[in-house]
Amino acid sequence: MAAPEAALAYARGQHEALLTQYKELLAIPSVSTLPEHRDDVRRAAQWLADALEGLGMQQVEVIATSGHPIVYGEHLEAPGKPTVLVYGHYDVQPVDPIGEWESDPFVPTVRGENLYARGASDMKGSLVALLKAVEALIKTGGLPVNLKFLLEGEEEVGSPSLPAFIPSNRERLAATVALNCDGDLYGPDQPSICYALRGLAYFEIEVHGPKQDLHSGVFGGSLHNPVQALCELIAGMHDADGRITLPGFYDAVRDLDPDERAALARSAVPDDQWMAMSGVPALAGEKGFSTVERVGARPSLDVNGIVGGFTGEGAKTVLPAKALAKISMRLVADQKPEDVHRQLVAYIEQHAPDTITWDVRGLGSAPAAIVDRDSPEMRAALRALADTFGAEPFFKREGGSIPVVGLMQDHLGLQSILMGCRLPDDNMHGPNEKQHLPTLYKGVEAFIRFLVNLGKTG
Amino acid sequence: MAAPEAALAYARGQHEALLTQYKELLAIPSVSTLPEHRDDVRRAAQWLADALEGLGMQQVEVIATSGHPIVYGEHLEAPGKPTVLVYGHYDVQPVDPIGEWESDPFVPTVRGENLYARGASDMKGSLVALLKAVEALIKTGGLPVNLKFLLEGEEEVGSPSLPAFIPSNRERLAATVALNCDGDLYGPDQPSICYALRGLAYFEIEVHGPKQDLHSGVFGGSLHNPVQALCELIAGMHDADGRITLPGFYDAVRDLDPDERAALARSAVPDDQWMAMSGVPALAGEKGFSTVERVGARPSLDVNGIVGGFTGEGAKTVLPAKALAKISMRLVADQKPEDVHRQLVAYIEQHAPDTITWDVRGLGSAPAAIVDRDSPEMRAALRALADTFGAEPFFKREGGSIPVVGLMQDHLGLQSILMGCRLPDDNMHGPNEKQHLPTLYKGVEAFIRFLVNLGKTG
Repeated sequence: MAAPEAALAYARGQHEALLTQYKELLAIPSVSTLPEHRDDVRRAAQWLADALEGLGMQQVEVIATSGHPIVYGEHLEAPGKPTVLVYGHYDVQPVDPIGEWESDPFVPTVRGENLYARGASDMKGSLVALLKAVEALIKTGGLPVNLKFLLEGEEEVGSPSLPAFIPSNRERLAATVALNCDGDLYGPDQPSICYALRGLAYFEIEVHGPKQDLHSGVFGGSLHNPVQALCELIAGMHDADGRITLPGFYDAVRDLDPDERAALARSAVPDDQWMAMSGVPALAGEKGFSTVERVGARPSLDVNGIVGGFTGEGAKTVLPAKALAKISMRLVADQKPEDVHRQLVAYIEQHAPDTITWDVRGLGSAPAAIVDRDSPEMRAALRALADTFGAEPFFKREGGSIPVVGLMQDHLGLQSILMGCRLPDDNMHGPNEKQHLPTLYKGVEAFIRFLVNLGKTG
Repeated sequence: MAAPEAALAYARGQHEALLTQYKELLAIPSVSTLPEHRDDVRRAAQWLADALEGLGMQQVEVIATSGHPIVYGEHLEAPGKPTVLVYGHYDVQPVDPIGEWESDPFVPTVRGENLYARGASDMKGSLVALLKAVEALIKTGGLPVNLKFLLEGEEEVGSPSLPAFIPSNRERLAATVALNCDGDLYGPDQPSICYALRGLAYFEIEVHGPKQDLHSGVFGGSLHNPVQALCELIAGMHDADGRITLPGFYDAVRDLDPDERAALARSAVPDDQWMAMSGVPALAGEKGFSTVERVGARPSLDVNGIVGGFTGEGAKTVLPAKALAKISMRLVADQKPEDVHRQLVAYIEQHAPDTITWDVRGLGSAPAAIVDRDSPEMRAALRALADTFGAEPFFKREGGSIPVVGLMQDHLGLQSILMGCRLPDDNMHGPNEKQHLPTLYKGVEAFIRFLVNLGKTG
């Protein structure tokens, strides 16, 4: 059962069957953010529970939460072998703007090599690919590892149930490694694997000046305008080299070694393409680092929003009483959100003048996640991708956060291997979301090889 | 007819009659900003037209505008004598919050030395005081000057009809000097006269970065956040000494001579009181100038409003596409709003990085106004106030703008003498607006003396 050939052969004969299952799941409009789709989300959960039972998983359960259910199932018949905690989500984004879809988002439609539907790429494709890989292994000799499935219906609304569910189910979820199927690939012929996600620390800063809005004619020139004071604080948060000036901000940041920089450079989107994607007239960022490093391997600080005074049409000569900014930092290993909170407060204490008062409120955080690039599990994934795609995978870091990765790292001590069948041009979250079907079929093979490789590590 | 004694004696016998007229006018709720009071505003206009006719004014007219009417009347029977263009307004502010009034705002009520009603101090009191002064002069020998009345009903909504009306009535409004009765006094025993008002130049600055809001995780660190860029531009608009850094901004600013500074110091509100009024923890402003100078005799730059990105409750990790600020400068003689517009654009051209694009839009302006402190008309006013109150008047500058003063300066070549019966604690625009009656009666005498003094200059 250790060689994947039989399972791969089985899977290659199942493309039609896979497509049928896939379309069935995609036809369920499991839009988690819209209350009118609540029953659809539940139907998708039940569809997956049935599929897990059909594969012979045990302890299959649709677990109620205060939102949408979590589907659990396990297969623990490979004693002495690693246990893989599979993470996925079966909910999808809304379809707006519906007018821009070329076919009904819930009538999966194949055009050329692609299948178009909401959720095709994010992430029902990867889910059915993994199920087919498991089926292929079971049908051709048995699973080479133990499996646990944790499938949620709330990823698109921020995974609100997981922060309570994961720590209170430590035993049930105990595993060797997590396989997070919500990953993507660099291109159809170039696999990649994301080994680091940035964390987040989100704050609201409020600056107070006068006790109420004042007449800017009567008082203008005699007091520190609180919007100006806030702007001064914000302007000072970066130096001329684009470095963040909060005291101690970089102390915990893990250095990049030349190998890692070279690996990241291979996965980089060229700067002209990055400019075109964002639409800015010129790129910017921390001196001494490339764009791919700036967004993946270096922390950043952004003003997410600002408001103060009169913001309607026309002119009102008000001297505002206060101003508010939402400011968040993207963190990298080994920065801790609580340290960053203290650094922000220290910065403001150092720089806020006595002409104003201020508050800082934390509005949420997520730890950065980083996975060892040289663990047995990572090597198992790299080899699976290389053998499947015929090219050595790129190592990638991602600028965003996937909260579940941090939660599994913190509460279960698990590193997550991010593997999936998504391509960068799949219009994830947009109209005409698609899945490249040849990549989906390769995904099945990569999952088979990964599980087989992993079995050999046990 | 040159000595004021008979007129003063007449006026002293008219306190009851004055109060009756005053209450009649105050009982008309001429709230210009509320459509439901449109007829009341018109009734107040008619009341004034009737009063002017009762005094023997000629060419009395209630002139329709696209908003509320202008009342005109004239008395040109003093050949060779100066002509005074009297400005006043008969509209009042809304009464909200009505619950904080101790008596009905439109049932004028005397408590102690004060009369409480909406419009009591701003400015029906000064209007009826002036009418009584004119009556006293007519009844006791005749008017020592020629008079023209321009009374509007839209001051509390920004005088929208005057910018067209004044230039298109140059001949009708031609005069030697303007008497603007919308002025105030330093205290009940201390007269003051405002000889300078700041101008205004109001702008909207928009900074554009990405073509649309981006995910701050995916892009954060690789481009210049447009809110940050706007904050940097704003932060740079003042230097460490509180001076405005727009190129050439102070070039046209008229210097303060030691005499004027000494005079202003006498009219100054103490800093601790100014802090209490504004509620700020500490005052601020341009180095080398006192608070009274900063708000009256020096220009200022304020952010009136700012907005960009996500400003709702909670956290949204957006990297905003753009940010907008409303920024206005209070100007002093001899700064020109159009020059300031060019200076602002030059500043942004010099400091905006190539990582963003930007727009500047003018949203209105008003010239600064300044009156010669040593003209015959000013001396006539100073002597009238000194003789009435038994104290030399303070010279004052005001930080705000009164558009009509600038309009008369620009279109009619008239300097405005600002005299009125208002005290600083009269709760103008607030609940329990009041007029100090002894000050009102002194106001009648001051107006009599001013007109008599003015007659001697002709």
